[in-house]
Amino acid sequence: MLKKNVIINFVGFLLILEGIFMWVGIPFSLYYNDNDIWVLFFTGLLTSLLGLVLFLSTKNKDKEVRKREGYIVVSIGWIVMSIFGAIPFVIHGSIPSYTDAFFETMSGFTTTGASILNDIESLPHGLLFWRSMTQWLGGMGMIVLSLAILPILGIGGMQLFVAEVPGPTKDKIHPRVRETAVRLWGIYVLLTAAEIVLLYIGGMTFFDAICHSFTTMATGGFSTKQASIAYYQSPFIHYVIIFFMISAGANFTIHYHILHGRFANVKRNEEFKFYITIIFFFAVLIAAVLFFSNYGNLEVSFRDSLFQVVSMITTTGYVTADYEVWGTFLLLLFVLFLFIGGCAGSTGGGIKIVRHLLLFKNSFLELRRLIHPRAVIPVRYNNHSVSQDIISNVLAFFLFYIFIFILGSLVMSLMGLDFMSAIGSVATSLGNVGPAVGSVGPTDNFAHIPSAGKWFLSFLMLLGRLELFTILVISSPAFWKS
Amino acid sequence: MLKKNVIINFVGFLLILEGIFMWVGIPFSLYYNDNDIWVLFFTGLLTSLLGLVLFLSTKNKDKEVRKREGYIVVSIGWIVMSIFGAIPFVIHGSIPSYTDAFFETMSGFTTTGASILNDIESLPHGLLFWRSMTQWLGGMGMIVLSLAILPILGIGGMQLFVAEVPGPTKDKIHPRVRETAVRLWGIYVLLTAAEIVLLYIGGMTFFDAICHSFTTMATGGFSTKQASIAYYQSPFIHYVIIFFMISAGANFTIHYHILHGRFANVKRNEEFKFYITIIFFFAVLIAAVLFFSNYGNLEVSFRDSLFQVVSMITTTGYVTADYEVWGTFLLLLFVLFLFIGGCAGSTGGGIKIVRHLLLFKNSFLELRRLIHPRAVIPVRYNNHSVSQDIISNVLAFFLFYIFIFILGSLVMSLMGLDFMSAIGSVATSLGNVGPAVGSVGPTDNFAHIPSAGKWFLSFLMLLGRLELFTILVISSPAFWKS
Repeated sequence: MLKKNVIINFVGFLLILEGIFMWVGIPFSLYYNDNDIWVLFFTGLLTSLLGLVLFLSTKNKDKEVRKREGYIVVSIGWIVMSIFGAIPFVIHGSIPSYTDAFFETMSGFTTTGASILNDIESLPHGLLFWRSMTQWLGGMGMIVLSLAILPILGIGGMQLFVAEVPGPTKDKIHPRVRETAVRLWGIYVLLTAAEIVLLYIGGMTFFDAICHSFTTMATGGFSTKQASIAYYQSPFIHYVIIFFMISAGANFTIHYHILHGRFANVKRNEEFKFYITIIFFFAVLIAAVLFFSNYGNLEVSFRDSLFQVVSMITTTGYVTADYEVWGTFLLLLFVLFLFIGGCAGSTGGGIKIVRHLLLFKNSFLELRRLIHPRAVIPVRYNNHSVSQDIISNVLAFFLFYIFIFILGSLVMSLMGLDFMSAIGSVATSLGNVGPAVGSVGPTDNFAHIPSAGKWFLSFLMLLGRLELFTILVISSPAFWKS
Repeated sequence: MLKKNVIINFVGFLLILEGIFMWVGIPFSLYYNDNDIWVLFFTGLLTSLLGLVLFLSTKNKDKEVRKREGYIVVSIGWIVMSIFGAIPFVIHGSIPSYTDAFFETMSGFTTTGASILNDIESLPHGLLFWRSMTQWLGGMGMIVLSLAILPILGIGGMQLFVAEVPGPTKDKIHPRVRETAVRLWGIYVLLTAAEIVLLYIGGMTFFDAICHSFTTMATGGFSTKQASIAYYQSPFIHYVIIFFMISAGANFTIHYHILHGRFANVKRNEEFKFYITIIFFFAVLIAAVLFFSNYGNLEVSFRDSLFQVVSMITTTGYVTADYEVWGTFLLLLFVLFLFIGGCAGSTGGGIKIVRHLLLFKNSFLELRRLIHPRAVIPVRYNNHSVSQDIISNVLAFFLFYIFIFILGSLVMSLMGLDFMSAIGSVATSLGNVGPAVGSVGPTDNFAHIPSAGKWFLSFLMLLGRLELFTILVISSPAFWKS
């Protein structure tokens, strides 16, 4: 039997937090004399109060969350946050349509970064701050989800790196989740603070430095500028953001090890090495193509290449240059980047590096298995044998991802999008990236997508953010029967 | 140690046959008074003589072919046939460039059907006949390959349906291969003969009826007309070809069962049922779209839809209508069709229905496995449990297919092709289909592709035709070490 109390209790708790976080941007609106102060104050207050009512309405505080509730709580969490998070934009009138506001907020909480705003700078500072905050909170949610909850649910190879970090190992979710989460959130906050300081030194206003640090560390990609990071000319700012995007796209247990001086663990981590390798491989390759096609000097070619590669692979989605004008070969590469994704246990979305690595290894081992049909040849990852169950789950994840991508593209083509825009909008939503190709390219936005399409893409963002299986399991009849 | 004798012996045998088959079209050239008689005669003679020399040069007639030789013999077979098969076109001058002639011939033997000819009707009848013959022979090769050789090599789930047909089960290839092959070739010849009669009745010349029957049954798609089957207005001809394309794309053991009245076996075959279901599902869906967009009357909408769907899914590649002008939604569907493929054990190429079916089943079972982590839930196919080894191999096949498709598209984009043409040319070559999208769409051809691109696409056709693994295994260091 489903423990409804646990779920209601959790939703109440989330809403209380959400309401409080809405207030955090109010000081900026006061400072800049904006007109969104009361909107944020009252929406925040009412959201918190509603949360409090829900929280208190559940008498039996059952602390034991099982897998079944885990699935539901995770899925409902993101939805509820987006439903309420969208309200201030609508009441203030800066995003009059609730569809648009919901799309923008879901894009925030899922750290996607796809926007429907045509004039970002016209928004008051409190709302801009809240918009960046949705991503930062989404990133926080993702850390606890991917490092503490999904591994227990057994989803998509997430068990693999849990062994590396002090964390829960039993079927019950509660005991050590909080401990792990707090530890990793500490790192998240620390890195955010460091970036704020550096961006401020680099010449951003304090407000912009905070907002961009929030959305960098969440691999979100919302900017306070319509032109995204291209607004800033400073190479220093670009490199700072590149560094923090790479950090945010890495498994947070890596940072934990680095902070504790355990560099052997970092060196042994195959996913991290592969992640760094592909980033620099593609950055150099693309820089070479740009340089030899007279794009600019070597530094500019490298910086623009590196920034765009890192932004796409980490699924951040910031833009300093328009890769759509770089020719078919590079365009194809950037479409591919939509399918890579950050490391598992990062705030990045997408398929994830570790899954690609496992699939790659398994496929090549299959050749050896064909030659030696009687030998048992397991995949090895970080010096451990990986069970066939995990490989099977990772493969199923990959196939569902492709299947949903295809189905989604067909749906978007029915909404009137052309070929490139249809596949691009779906790939970028599912991968939680932000920009794509076609009419939703790096210099465009999602305002022109029909309403039904916005709801559909919002759903894909959620599906991708929750590693597909969370939603798929809930949607399966077997889940409700058992 | 590799038995070189076996390989040389086999190549000699193939060349003797190829030379003899080159002569078969000569009577038509005599009848139509064409100028390619001596070209075919002498090329055929010299090819056969060279083959005879190779065949006789191997003293020790070792009858025992092991897996290692199996891999090499299969790969070399298709290459040698194409190298020699291209010669008559060049000597005659109708295809002056050897690159073009090799592309055309590889496209023939792999039953792809992609052509570089801009004026097919200008070719003499003997060469046109030889061109169709390459596909028919390729189809014959494929039947013995997929039903007798690949299952023993353990490639891509091919073991699965072998149990259904009297065939070899041991590690040694020789004993019952010949028996199985002869039986299934009988069916192939029978169906070809039946189609010739029906197309002749439908109004084709005897020559065109033979050529089109050859390329239908091979799911090849070479036509003797530049306009492909669109040249013929007769609905009867269209429906006859649809019927035989469907037959050619089905597992030939199905025909064997039907001929022996074992309909229970046919009804039990999940791949066949799935194959028929998706064909009619998409045919009806697309017909509806066409009809409601005022494409034509109901019969024309249905016929054009069914013909194109069957042609693409069976990987034949005939054309009676240009699907590129049917809008983005249908265009996306036709791009997808490039990745479906016929049934295993048919002459069709591509990923194959059975693999999609197994992947589909395994992915959905994964949801149940997540909910019941301790239960062992195997995939079932035709009422049997499928071993995890086979699933793993099928998954590896799928991933290699996608990986090669991506890499190939990048290569073709470097050759100057635009996005759609790059992905289309690679998908259609790898899937042995024929037409694609972009500049290699159903009303275009491959003449404009740069030379390097033609060699590369020829390689992809071979790779796809030999179910990837044959070539991949040979390319792996482990194969040569053991």
